[in-house]
Amino acid sequence: MLMKSKIKYIQSLSQKKLREQEGVFVAEGPKIVGEILQAPNTELEQIFATRKWILQNPLQAQDFEEKLMEVNDDELKRISFLQSPNMVLGIFKQPVFVPFNVTDKVSLMLDAIQDPGNLGTIVRCADWFGVQQIICSRDCADIFSSKVVQSTMGSICRVQVIYEDLLSFIQSHSNVLLYAATLKGVDLSKYPNIQEGIILIGNESKGIQPELLSMVDHQITIPGKGNAESLNAAIATGIILSHLI
Amino acid sequence: MLMKSKIKYIQSLSQKKLREQEGVFVAEGPKIVGEILQAPNTELEQIFATRKWILQNPLQAQDFEEKLMEVNDDELKRISFLQSPNMVLGIFKQPVFVPFNVTDKVSLMLDAIQDPGNLGTIVRCADWFGVQQIICSRDCADIFSSKVVQSTMGSICRVQVIYEDLLSFIQSHSNVLLYAATLKGVDLSKYPNIQEGIILIGNESKGIQPELLSMVDHQITIPGKGNAESLNAAIATGIILSHLI
Repeated sequence: MLMKSKIKYIQSLSQKKLREQEGVFVAEGPKIVGEILQAPNTELEQIFATRKWILQNPLQAQDFEEKLMEVNDDELKRISFLQSPNMVLGIFKQPVFVPFNVTDKVSLMLDAIQDPGNLGTIVRCADWFGVQQIICSRDCADIFSSKVVQSTMGSICRVQVIYEDLLSFIQSHSNVLLYAATLKGVDLSKYPNIQEGIILIGNESKGIQPELLSMVDHQITIPGKGNAESLNAAIATGIILSHLI
Repeated sequence: MLMKSKIKYIQSLSQKKLREQEGVFVAEGPKIVGEILQAPNTELEQIFATRKWILQNPLQAQDFEEKLMEVNDDELKRISFLQSPNMVLGIFKQPVFVPFNVTDKVSLMLDAIQDPGNLGTIVRCADWFGVQQIICSRDCADIFSSKVVQSTMGSICRVQVIYEDLLSFIQSHSNVLLYAATLKGVDLSKYPNIQEGIILIGNESKGIQPELLSMVDHQITIPGKGNAESLNAAIATGIILSHLI
C-alpha cells in the first residue's frame, strides 16, 4: 500500500525547489519511463507501476524489483501529474552530463521560453539533430517540470540543459559565433552548414532582448509567404537546425 | 450584467456539436481577437471585454459597440475557456473560404493529429509558408475547439481546414502528387521546391496508416543525427514546408 507520506513526497516534486533539493525528477508513461530506465546517465530512485505495466515489462520489473512498487489505478491517480495517468511513474536522479563546452559543436540558447511544451519539444528536436547542449535563460521553464519532461519524450537524458545569465555566458564565450533567429536577418537558405556555433532562439511574443541581440554575429530569418506574424519558437528551432546542421 | 443563460450558452460552445449547430467559435485574448476582428471572412457575433480592453482598444470597441458587452474579471472567468482569462472573449461565425481546390498549389493533409496544440501550431505554420488549405482526417482535433483556436494565433481565418475521409479524397485527386513525411523516405534536401502537391503528415506514434501510405508518390525523410525516435508532427511539418516551398 502506498503510504500517505510517500504520496505527499511525490506531490511535493511538482515544486522546482523540492526537485532541486532532492536532485530528482518524475517521468510517466511506459514509453518515456522505458527510455529513461535505459539511459546511462541517470539512476532510478523509485518506480510505481500498475499490474498491467509489470506484466507488459517483465524484464524491467525484474531488473528494478527492489525499487518497484505495485500500485492500483486509484493510487497511481493520486501520485500522477498527468490528466490521464499512464500505468507507470518513475522518480529518477537528475541526469549527469560531461562538462558543458561550446567549442567544436552546435549548441542552442533559449531566451525566455516559458511554455513547458515548447521547451520540451525544443529539447526533443535538438536531440533529433544531434545538438546536445542547450543554454537557457533563468526565466525559461524548468527542464525537470512534469510537462517539460513529458514533452521531451525521453530526450531529457540525452540533451544537457543549463540555466545561465545569457549575457555573461555570451561575453565569456565570445570566440564562438552567435546566430539568432529574427524577423529581419538574412534568408536561412543563404547559410551553409555549420560545425560550431550557438543558435539563439527568443521568446515568441517579446523576441530576443535588445542587449543580447546586439551581441549576435548572424541574424537568420525563415522566409515566409503568408500572413502569420511569427512562427512558434519550437518550429523555428526545428527549421533552423534542419538547414544549418 | 451577464445573464445566466448567456453564460450557459458560451460554456456550451466547448462542445463540438453545439459549435457546429451554431456555426460559431470562440477566440480569446487581445492579440487573437484583434486579428480575427480584422479578418474579412468571418463575422463577429458577440464580444465580451473588460474595461481595460475597452480602454486599450477604443476604435474596435466603438466599431463593434452594438455587439460589445463589458464584463468584470469574475464574469470573464466564468465564460473563459482559458486558465488565465485575458481581457476579451469573442464569439465569431466560422470563417467562409473559397471552394477547396488542390490544383496549382501546395496543401497539407493530416492523419490523426489529435493534440489540439499540435494542430493549431501546424495551421499557424502553414499560414507562415502561404499554405492555405489543410485536409484533416475525421479523427484529427476539431479546428474550432478552444485550444486549437488559441494556438493558431489568428491563422484560423487564413487557412481553410476541411475534414474528409483521406482515402477517398486521395482517390478522387489522383492527378495531384502526394508527398508524405516518413522515417524511411528520401532525404528532404534532395527534393526541389514544389508548386503543387499534397503533403501528408501522420500521427507521431502511429505514423501514417498503411492504406494511405501505399498511395503516396514521394516519401520524404528529415535526416537526424541524434537518438530521438521521432520529431513532433508540427516540427516535422515546419521543416518540410521550409524546404519544399
